[in-house]
Amino acid sequence: MKIIRAGSTPSTKGPEEYFTGTVRIDPMFQADAPGRTGGAHVTFEPRARTAWHTHPAGQTIIITFGRGRVQREGGPVEEVTAGDLAFFWRLYI
Amino acid sequence: MKIIRAGSTPSTKGPEEYFTGTVRIDPMFQADAPGRTGGAHVTFEPRARTAWHTHPAGQTIIITFGRGRVQREGGPVEEVTAGDLAFFWRLYI
Repeated sequence: MKIIRAGSTPSTKGPEEYFTGTVRIDPMFQADAPGRTGGAHVTFEPRARTAWHTHPAGQTIIITFGRGRVQREGGPVEEVTAGDLAFFWRLYI
Repeated sequence: MKIIRAGSTPSTKGPEEYFTGTVRIDPMFQADAPGRTGGAHVTFEPRARTAWHTHPAGQTIIITFGRGRVQREGGPVEEVTAGDLAFFWRLYI
């Protein structure tokens, strides 16, 4: 068993290759094998967004605060708000 | 892309085979292949706890509220509080 304490992991700034605008990343975890899951808190300032990208094993987004918009490439823009979940399977976000 | 809206999934009660005390489970998601991750909010009333069990691909616990205790079988009891993360790899929780 391993415990990571609140506030013990420094935040980083979302790099310009992957984000437009101001984005803070607070890394949470990366599972050891045979687990493959990783997780992070990602905080978007207003108008910040990701670049188009894919997730080979999918991505689950848990909206914990505020509201935003999500889109699969070629699909409709959808509004999401705190408590909503958005899933992407090998798709564009 | 799939969106699950806040409050759209009914809560269930943690079954007596797996929990002692009053536990509420709010299912969140189960990834589609090739993803394998599932997640749920699990709320423990005071003194509630899980039965000893294992997770073949590990488990990550994100403590979002309050404080509690976690333990690997045979290991020390450790206190955790909101914002802490606890990881278990094929181990007893």
